[in-house]
Amino acid sequence: MAKLTGAAVFGQSGGPTSVINSSASGVFQQALKEELITEVYGAAHGIKGILEENFYDMSKESQEELDLLKTTPSSALGSVRYKLADPSVDDTDYKRILEVFKKYNIRYFFYNGGNDSMDTTNKISKFLAKSGYECIVMGVPKTIDNDLFGTDHCPGYASAARYVATTIMEVYQDARVYDTPMITVIEIMGRNAGWLTAASALAAHKGAGPDLIYLPEVPFTIDKFVSDVRKVFDKTGKVIVAFSEGCKNNEGQYIAEMGSTLSTDAFGHAQLGGASSVLADIVKNEFKCKVRGIEFSLMQRCGAHIGSKTDVDEAFMAGSEAVKAATSGVTDHMVAFERIMVDGKYTCKPQLVNLSYAANTEKTFPMEWLNKEKNFVTKEFIEYALPLIQGDSHPPYVDGLPRFAKLNKVLVPKK
Amino acid sequence: MAKLTGAAVFGQSGGPTSVINSSASGVFQQALKEELITEVYGAAHGIKGILEENFYDMSKESQEELDLLKTTPSSALGSVRYKLADPSVDDTDYKRILEVFKKYNIRYFFYNGGNDSMDTTNKISKFLAKSGYECIVMGVPKTIDNDLFGTDHCPGYASAARYVATTIMEVYQDARVYDTPMITVIEIMGRNAGWLTAASALAAHKGAGPDLIYLPEVPFTIDKFVSDVRKVFDKTGKVIVAFSEGCKNNEGQYIAEMGSTLSTDAFGHAQLGGASSVLADIVKNEFKCKVRGIEFSLMQRCGAHIGSKTDVDEAFMAGSEAVKAATSGVTDHMVAFERIMVDGKYTCKPQLVNLSYAANTEKTFPMEWLNKEKNFVTKEFIEYALPLIQGDSHPPYVDGLPRFAKLNKVLVPKK
Repeated sequence: MAKLTGAAVFGQSGGPTSVINSSASGVFQQALKEELITEVYGAAHGIKGILEENFYDMSKESQEELDLLKTTPSSALGSVRYKLADPSVDDTDYKRILEVFKKYNIRYFFYNGGNDSMDTTNKISKFLAKSGYECIVMGVPKTIDNDLFGTDHCPGYASAARYVATTIMEVYQDARVYDTPMITVIEIMGRNAGWLTAASALAAHKGAGPDLIYLPEVPFTIDKFVSDVRKVFDKTGKVIVAFSEGCKNNEGQYIAEMGSTLSTDAFGHAQLGGASSVLADIVKNEFKCKVRGIEFSLMQRCGAHIGSKTDVDEAFMAGSEAVKAATSGVTDHMVAFERIMVDGKYTCKPQLVNLSYAANTEKTFPMEWLNKEKNFVTKEFIEYALPLIQGDSHPPYVDGLPRFAKLNKVLVPKK
Repeated sequence: MAKLTGAAVFGQSGGPTSVINSSASGVFQQALKEELITEVYGAAHGIKGILEENFYDMSKESQEELDLLKTTPSSALGSVRYKLADPSVDDTDYKRILEVFKKYNIRYFFYNGGNDSMDTTNKISKFLAKSGYECIVMGVPKTIDNDLFGTDHCPGYASAARYVATTIMEVYQDARVYDTPMITVIEIMGRNAGWLTAASALAAHKGAGPDLIYLPEVPFTIDKFVSDVRKVFDKTGKVIVAFSEGCKNNEGQYIAEMGSTLSTDAFGHAQLGGASSVLADIVKNEFKCKVRGIEFSLMQRCGAHIGSKTDVDEAFMAGSEAVKAATSGVTDHMVAFERIMVDGKYTCKPQLVNLSYAANTEKTFPMEWLNKEKNFVTKEFIEYALPLIQGDSHPPYVDGLPRFAKLNKVLVPKK
């Protein structure tokens, strides 16, 4: 596309990560430098902020706070889960976006998110083009699920992986402190892709991790699970299981739902807890020993205090590269990462992939990186993941506690 | 007591903390230097290791691993929950301990634990004295509950408090990322004392903490809880609640048990989850909004990667001071901490308190540090807790992951 002069808007979408604000920092700091970009806006709550004309003027933020964004978890601008309709069915939102873009002369649109958000970004771009409105549209990837197509890995994944691996290493010490049998079942995020649950293997690689790992890519059955646990239990009396919240049986039932049926059948009452408490109840009943169900919950995706420096830096780069590409005339692409190994040393190079390619489908965990029993991952995964979690990143501490960015959030007067 | 020459044994007892091994490091490093101490033994699984003569020869450990103990969470020697009988009722275990101590010429006994362990230590000391066996007995405090008498605070508390405060600050960012109502209920450890739950107020002090705090010292009723939540919810639509696992109603029922009754009444089924899922279910039903129940589980007591340097150093000092006092002839005492504020600057001085005093009873949270509504803590608590969490402590990272101590654990041949 020809180079455009005008305002830029950036929005954050979907579930937060530890580093989505680092990408925001990269976008803002680069955009504020670009001559072609006349104004830099942050959309409050993603696409919703565009529809409602809620824009923050990012030129009103201090350099210090923009830098602090790099180590501030979650979405500083606010996020959203809002799915745009298919424009061929209902183009109301698209027309509204076009109207707003025209009003504010927005010629650069950057959107930060996962699969769904890349799809949204792509649809908006196509609609604007069809309407004859010139606007450069770029996607910035993020997801702890690591399931975006066309990129070696996704910003946000490695910090969550480092949280998972570090925390399991600590829980491992705790869970074997008594000389009595104990089973620990740990629930990790990832509805459809097992990348984050697989990161528990990094703890095992250091000798302090799970014995068994269950990913959503493999159908989960209670019988196989209990028999797997029994094998380890009979040998050591201590078992740690890492499993994905997304594990489903052949009928597509999630573990929490399986528990409901099972518990009602076996004990005459419904089980209301999450998946970790369902599995904990099942093994407690089977093995009559101390059992603990643990859910890493929100902590795994916002644990910036144990972030990966590699991840934080790459997330920043993804943001700044999106702006550089945009001002050089590229549109309809997402920034992706290419892994280059030189003499065994990892480097990461930004590359651009077509938005429609990235929005296409989920990149699930490779089946060839599972062991024969499909209850653990192979060393190929360790080789893949280990370089990503290198380097210690945490926010600066003031009074022993994190100092996160505090944005002024000066609203742009509505036009 | 006259100075004694002989072997020393050290054991760890009760629930692990992030810094109990730092006290072990202090005991071992000091004991290995003392001329009066001929051998330094680590008891496997506390008192059980003594009864079973399972001793590790600590002189067989490298300086590097002994140093790494300072940042290795949980009990490296193994812990135990074993309550000795009242010796006037059943002195079998005491006689066995005496037999073992004689056999190995153990003249120094150091025991690291909370209330119950100090009681055990005290009973053993009295029994040995009554039996005419000369042995110096010293307690080393530890508990994340911070409920030991005769000390300003307890090793282990501050690191758990720093975990709680930091993690809530992160969860706070995550929990308000969407512009839709959300209620988050966070369960924190502490069966009888609210010190650790109160630490959530440190996050609030930094503007990113809970709106409501419930301690076990205050009777908990669902009605008051729901009405408290409603007041915040109506104002902001976002509520974060921190509550102690030890919260009970006037009849002494824990929250998890209340839920069971409540859920059966209201929906016709039993609620099996922990306290956080019980409260989450209650507010979900009342407020019809997104609700998340979070349990900090084992992570809060083994999160050495976000330890307090102050705590780690003080825990080490408690260990080394116990040895120094012992070799100077002191017995039947526990090392305690005195807080000295000089020009507003915190310093911590070791002092010795009588074991029977420390074992006496639990130090609960002061009622005068609660607000009028008894659903938050006052600034006096912040002033008390803030100095304790200063300084960043974490294990050294190798390959981006913690490097914990790996002891050789060379067993002493049984005599």
